[in-house]
Amino acid sequence: MLGESRVIVRPTPLCAETPQDALAAEITPAGLHYVRSNFPFPELDARTHRVRVDGAVGEALELGMDELARLPRRTLGVTLECAGNDRLTLAPLPAGELWGGGAVAAAEWGGVSLADVLARAGVAPSALEVLVEAADEGFAGGNEICFARSLPMDKALHPDTLLAFEMNGAPLPPEHGAPLRLVVPGWYGMASVKWVSRVSVLTEPFAGYFQRERYVMDYGAGGPAVPVAEMAVKAVVTEPRGGEVLGTRPVTVRGWAWSGAAPVTRVQLAVDGGDAWEDARVHPASHSYLWQRWEYEWASRASGRHTLRVRAHDAAGNVQPDSPRWNRLGYGANAVRSVVVEAR
Amino acid sequence: MLGESRVIVRPTPLCAETPQDALAAEITPAGLHYVRSNFPFPELDARTHRVRVDGAVGEALELGMDELARLPRRTLGVTLECAGNDRLTLAPLPAGELWGGGAVAAAEWGGVSLADVLARAGVAPSALEVLVEAADEGFAGGNEICFARSLPMDKALHPDTLLAFEMNGAPLPPEHGAPLRLVVPGWYGMASVKWVSRVSVLTEPFAGYFQRERYVMDYGAGGPAVPVAEMAVKAVVTEPRGGEVLGTRPVTVRGWAWSGAAPVTRVQLAVDGGDAWEDARVHPASHSYLWQRWEYEWASRASGRHTLRVRAHDAAGNVQPDSPRWNRLGYGANAVRSVVVEAR
Repeated sequence: MLGESRVIVRPTPLCAETPQDALAAEITPAGLHYVRSNFPFPELDARTHRVRVDGAVGEALELGMDELARLPRRTLGVTLECAGNDRLTLAPLPAGELWGGGAVAAAEWGGVSLADVLARAGVAPSALEVLVEAADEGFAGGNEICFARSLPMDKALHPDTLLAFEMNGAPLPPEHGAPLRLVVPGWYGMASVKWVSRVSVLTEPFAGYFQRERYVMDYGAGGPAVPVAEMAVKAVVTEPRGGEVLGTRPVTVRGWAWSGAAPVTRVQLAVDGGDAWEDARVHPASHSYLWQRWEYEWASRASGRHTLRVRAHDAAGNVQPDSPRWNRLGYGANAVRSVVVEAR
Repeated sequence: MLGESRVIVRPTPLCAETPQDALAAEITPAGLHYVRSNFPFPELDARTHRVRVDGAVGEALELGMDELARLPRRTLGVTLECAGNDRLTLAPLPAGELWGGGAVAAAEWGGVSLADVLARAGVAPSALEVLVEAADEGFAGGNEICFARSLPMDKALHPDTLLAFEMNGAPLPPEHGAPLRLVVPGWYGMASVKWVSRVSVLTEPFAGYFQRERYVMDYGAGGPAVPVAEMAVKAVVTEPRGGEVLGTRPVTVRGWAWSGAAPVTRVQLAVDGGDAWEDARVHPASHSYLWQRWEYEWASRASGRHTLRVRAHDAAGNVQPDSPRWNRLGYGANAVRSVVVEAR
């Protein structure tokens, strides 16, 4: 059994999953929320840390944490999923961290709109993207670099794209980007740059390593490798757990569903194979960009092994596929999975 | 945890897997050996049961169990795998019983060579196949039929193709085909017809339901659907178990490997992804057609989660593929699987 601590996938730089037990809660405790880092954590002091805002702006700025805190406060519940979550479901197994299903979690993030910060600097009409750089550093792609990703202007200026300094009502822990991180609701986690040191308005597309060489969907066949963005629609089962032994009496199957594109409108469940998909009850998200609760009453079952499959649909017409679409770097794996349980 | 009883996949007609614990043993106890049946078990009395031998033979016969027992005795250790084993690894999930990895087992079968029985009847020069029929019956493919499969002459006349009446030194249990079953070493289990009531020498290819509509490899695209025959090369890990929590000190990873085509010559193991395949130690089969033991010394590991992948090669040049080759009915799934464990 997995206990009440994160499951380490790589010790250094730390990559760790939310433990299965913790996935049952709507808000994940900060200490159990999955962590993905590409380089060692930078040690930043909130009292002296400053974020630089520059590039195609009217006036370049440097803002301390106290100055940021004086901007209008915004708090959002957000489910974040790592782009590589469920990579283990892909075959052949791609390179990269071997995430199972635990690189997803939900938290309440407090901070300010990135748009308000950009407004203070004044965005030039020629602006195309906003680059956000981390204070970490390491060797990747043949160079000493920091983690950095860009956002298109509409996403960068969306009021719900946050520069966050609080997680679940407390200051950010180091592994989650203290003292300041980006939170980009609806997008895979790589967009939510941690340890933010610089926000730079660009007039050309950013072509850095983590934008062009990693976190891109590369289906091979010479097609363009598009940067990963919105989270694909997905449902997870939190109860029962895979391998669990149940009785034969009625139980409630439940879990979460989310999509970066639109609200989840339908969750379906099939028992023991076949195409007899039945509708689960789907609740609206209780707050902002949190995952949505779904439940299904599983009336009874014979003794023996049973297989549950669940799939979610969103309001944009997306549905989880029956088989994963393999891509070289193993991102966005959202195919229907089988949860196998036993009744006795 | 799975206990010391078979894992029921379908209660009636019984389909049940060998429990994980029992896979560690070289010979599976009869009561734990996986069972695949298509129709309810027929109730046959060994004292009165007779097998008819007819078709393109010099003289049709009916033999009782006592007459069969007077032919030269032959005992073979044989690993049998269901053609649908590991169907759950295929996506989209095909129709059919949802076998995980437990539809495989090994037993010692005692009986007589089918060839000796056929010799008594005298096989006509025009013989093309030998049809073996079971005494069960049920509704399938639109007709009331019995389970029946044919073998090509070379396989039917191979001295190791048995009409068996003993399993692990005792009379056959009902679910394993009492009082008489076929055992076809090296082939998937569907060839080893249980409850044998008739052996018929054919001069035309058999076109029955279980030969042409089921137990065929149908890759779609209009290609011919070929009857399933030899077991594909495969390795399984019996220790550690998936989900097991290990320490960080050296452990031995071990399991079994088999192939219907030829002996297993090489088993390789990759830790935590990538292409650094290392050789495991492979032992010869201790008897006849039994699976082969392999072992790998896993020196040490950091705390956290680890992924083991194992693949087997056989002397005919076959190797387990990195990804499953999907087929409509879900047979022969032998792609490399990931075993995920945790170290603390």
